[in-house]
Amino acid sequence: MTERAFTLQQIAEQTGGQVDGDPQYRVTGLATLESAEAGQLSLYTGSRYLQQLVDSTAGAVLINAEERAQASCHAVIVDDPYAAYARLTHLFDRNSGLAAGIHPSAVIAESASVSETAQICANVVIGENSVIADDCYIGANTVVGERCQLGSGCRLHANVTLYNDVRLGERVIIHSSAVLGADGFGFAPWKESWFKIAQLGGVVVGDDVEIGACTTIDRGALDNTLIDNGVKLDNQIMVGHNVEIGEHSAIAACTGIAGSTRIGKHVRIAGGAGIAGHISIADHSYISGMAMVTGSVRKAGSYSSGTALEPTATWRRNVVRFRQLDSLAGRVKELEQKIKEIEGHS
Amino acid sequence: MTERAFTLQQIAEQTGGQVDGDPQYRVTGLATLESAEAGQLSLYTGSRYLQQLVDSTAGAVLINAEERAQASCHAVIVDDPYAAYARLTHLFDRNSGLAAGIHPSAVIAESASVSETAQICANVVIGENSVIADDCYIGANTVVGERCQLGSGCRLHANVTLYNDVRLGERVIIHSSAVLGADGFGFAPWKESWFKIAQLGGVVVGDDVEIGACTTIDRGALDNTLIDNGVKLDNQIMVGHNVEIGEHSAIAACTGIAGSTRIGKHVRIAGGAGIAGHISIADHSYISGMAMVTGSVRKAGSYSSGTALEPTATWRRNVVRFRQLDSLAGRVKELEQKIKEIEGHS
Amino acid sequence: MTERAFTLQQIAEQTGGQVDGDPQYRVTGLATLESAEAGQLSLYTGSRYLQQLVDSTAGAVLINAEERAQASCHAVIVDDPYAAYARLTHLFDRNSGLAAGIHPSAVIAESASVSETAQICANVVIGENSVIADDCYIGANTVVGERCQLGSGCRLHANVTLYNDVRLGERVIIHSSAVLGADGFGFAPWKESWFKIAQLGGVVVGDDVEIGACTTIDRGALDNTLIDNGVKLDNQIMVGHNVEIGEHSAIAACTGIAGSTRIGKHVRIAGGAGIAGHISIADHSYISGMAMVTGSVRKAGSYSSGTALEPTATWRRNVVRFRQLDSLAGRVKELEQKIKEIEGHS
Repeated sequence: MTERAFTLQQIAEQTGGQVDGDPQYRVTGLATLESAEAGQLSLYTGSRYLQQLVDSTAGAVLINAEERAQASCHAVIVDDPYAAYARLTHLFDRNSGLAAGIHPSAVIAESASVSETAQICANVVIGENSVIADDCYIGANTVVGERCQLGSGCRLHANVTLYNDVRLGERVIIHSSAVLGADGFGFAPWKESWFKIAQLGGVVVGDDVEIGACTTIDRGALDNTLIDNGVKLDNQIMVGHNVEIGEHSAIAACTGIAGSTRIGKHVRIAGGAGIAGHISIADHSYISGMAMVTGSVRKAGSYSSGTALEPTATWRRNVVRFRQLDSLAGRVKELEQKIKEIEGHS
Repeated sequence: MTERAFTLQQIAEQTGGQVDGDPQYRVTGLATLESAEAGQLSLYTGSRYLQQLVDSTAGAVLINAEERAQASCHAVIVDDPYAAYARLTHLFDRNSGLAAGIHPSAVIAESASVSETAQICANVVIGENSVIADDCYIGANTVVGERCQLGSGCRLHANVTLYNDVRLGERVIIHSSAVLGADGFGFAPWKESWFKIAQLGGVVVGDDVEIGACTTIDRGALDNTLIDNGVKLDNQIMVGHNVEIGEHSAIAACTGIAGSTRIGKHVRIAGGAGIAGHISIADHSYISGMAMVTGSVRKAGSYSSGTALEPTATWRRNVVRFRQLDSLAGRVKELEQKIKEIEGHS
Repeated sequence: MTERAFTLQQIAEQTGGQVDGDPQYRVTGLATLESAEAGQLSLYTGSRYLQQLVDSTAGAVLINAEERAQASCHAVIVDDPYAAYARLTHLFDRNSGLAAGIHPSAVIAESASVSETAQICANVVIGENSVIADDCYIGANTVVGERCQLGSGCRLHANVTLYNDVRLGERVIIHSSAVLGADGFGFAPWKESWFKIAQLGGVVVGDDVEIGACTTIDRGALDNTLIDNGVKLDNQIMVGHNVEIGEHSAIAACTGIAGSTRIGKHVRIAGGAGIAGHISIADHSYISGMAMVTGSVRKAGSYSSGTALEPTATWRRNVVRFRQLDSLAGRVKELEQKIKEIEGHS
């Protein structure tokens, strides 16, 4: 493998920053302040990391003008070191290349259309009438069903599954073991058992969406399940049928969203939350980790539920009291009345 | 693709209903009241949707006799519109066909037996001594281990994994990235570390079971893990080793069931619940979303745990009080005694 | 299939025990006390199972010396029947064999190195510069990325995905649909949207680690995500980028660990727990099921959160009271002051 290297001058150009130090200093990688060595570029994002900056052996640092004096190494002065770092990570990413062509072991349906600039890896299977646009990457052993459409620049990692009728916008990234378009969980009660409702909708995903490993997005019952532009979904998320997630919302791992719920735009949901079906969450809301959301959130804000960690021994006692809470509240009310009476007498 | 179309007369015959309108009216699809257009059939399930019915441009509607007058379009009169709709979805399902045969890229062990009426898709791998009965569909890149048995009409979607010794009844549906038969989580403590216990049981699944995407059902330690007839499991569910799930129970996404627990018949569990190991849940019970079940549920009923969503600012204060709850209860008791004393004096 | 059979004498030798009964008695399998038949060996782990022991039709039993009298069948006397049983399961495991060689359908990169004693199953894909050491098993349709290293004796089941730059120690077991090395969930806020941070670290796994089905371990942002020797991860676990899990910690299914958190050594975490990012959990701690851990655990001990299951009707009332808990505490305080005043007057 060839090492990637850039001069500080090149780094400054990429980030819209200015070099304070040797512009020809050669950077061969990015690293945290703690682990960076000579030749590596780190970033300083605030006083919380001051000691790490002082102790760091980094060759250079991304830093803003006011803090520059804190660092003794070469620097690239930028307004927002974190944003500059985000941009630079792509320069050093060894995992994003594209080698156009279809691996001979791939199985592509006759009626499918695959761009000549796409890379289709080993053992990929693509179904009838699907369309793979320019510059797509489809990782090994991934399966794309029938009538799917992938916009340009999509990146499906290995072992992804798209069922039939899944449409992706441009530059969508999907991680391994993710599943888009499986049947929604729809059954009609029927003679003490469950009668399956065929799921006739599809899944429609906008541009610049990222979908994590083992995340599942079910197809709609009649209409489509919709993931709008710029949505970021972490791993192990469950999106039920006919859910709609608005633009630029970001959802952390292990969260589940039940069917037909509408998540607004710019919503952030932390990990392990559970969102009931048939409700809506207002734009710009924040839902904290493991929160249980059983009704609509109509006003933007930060919302939470659950109890805090404590030693199991004391927790056990408090948990018992929780089950008596309504009765405890009644007893307090009674006490208040008695006190009132006593005060009235005196 | 050819469009599927049915006359209202045909729809009525399929659903045991009666046409009120033009029996030759041609229906080309199903749709919700909100999105249905001319030529599409919708359903009306109750007064909650009355305004949608009034506003709908659907060509026809499934509706019961009492409500018929509310709809101005053609109608098929049925007793239970939702059940009728469930049945009709299968008429319009483009994703359920079967093209018998084995794709040349599939790798089938010599000793495996595959029915001539089964469809084995690209890159499927089937292990020694496994049996695939009539009318099974095995999706692309799915792996079936050794000594597995699939009853007739099973449908395994793409990228499913069956380990060795998994037995499925008839008409079992398994969605992508699901895993049946992985090792149960069994270790014996041994010199400050963990000694693996080989998992010698298998997984046995009854008829008409559906298993969602990324759901995992572990093999038994010695005996089998058992999923009985008609059970419906949503996505991302974890079923531990030696769990038994009784007939027609339905479990929503992201629920976890720890080892050796017995779920009764006709139990319904909402999403994200956690069920401890070595307990049992009574037939016909209902467990609400994200509930934590640490002991057996011996009597049918509806059970819940957790706290409700609230603004994070007030939640923080209440959470602190939860940890003082036992002490608060003690203080209330003390107050009650003091009041009693005061009342005694007066 | 040939049956595996061992004499009690052989069993005793394998477990360091002593036969009390016929040393030539032939054992053909292991079974629970409840299901064991003649010819099968069971285990007795304590008085909780006494009635099962008395009723058992097992041919022989693993039991300790003090309890021997309780059993009427042949016995192998051992100090720790459970540990002896753990060891014996491997004798009877039909699923652990190895047939060295590379299946012709596997796609192995030119620069990859695969030991002659490894078994590479059908449709496996191995990327450039990866190294597969002796006695590894790579199950069907599993994908190993570029620059991966597998130590000797690793066992990857079917449909596993290793991204680029994943390093495994020796004897690591990974179950199906698990994903190691997917991108961490890292984005910089940028003009009302999210700018992806390329994830440049890898995943490093120690020796004797087991990773469950559908478990995901993300690659590090800059440094690696680290799973130390002897760690056992159940199914459907999410390990965020740059997490470190210390030696011999065991984590049950459906637990999520957010980025950069450090789990100590010998930590046990029950199922469905949620661990926030950027915190640390002390060595030897125990976190109970579905616990929400939002801050560091600095002292070993048992920790919990959440509320207990109760009938939904009463739960609803208590949940309402939880949201009034801070105000209730205020009212109790007020009452205490009033009582004090009243007592002062009398």
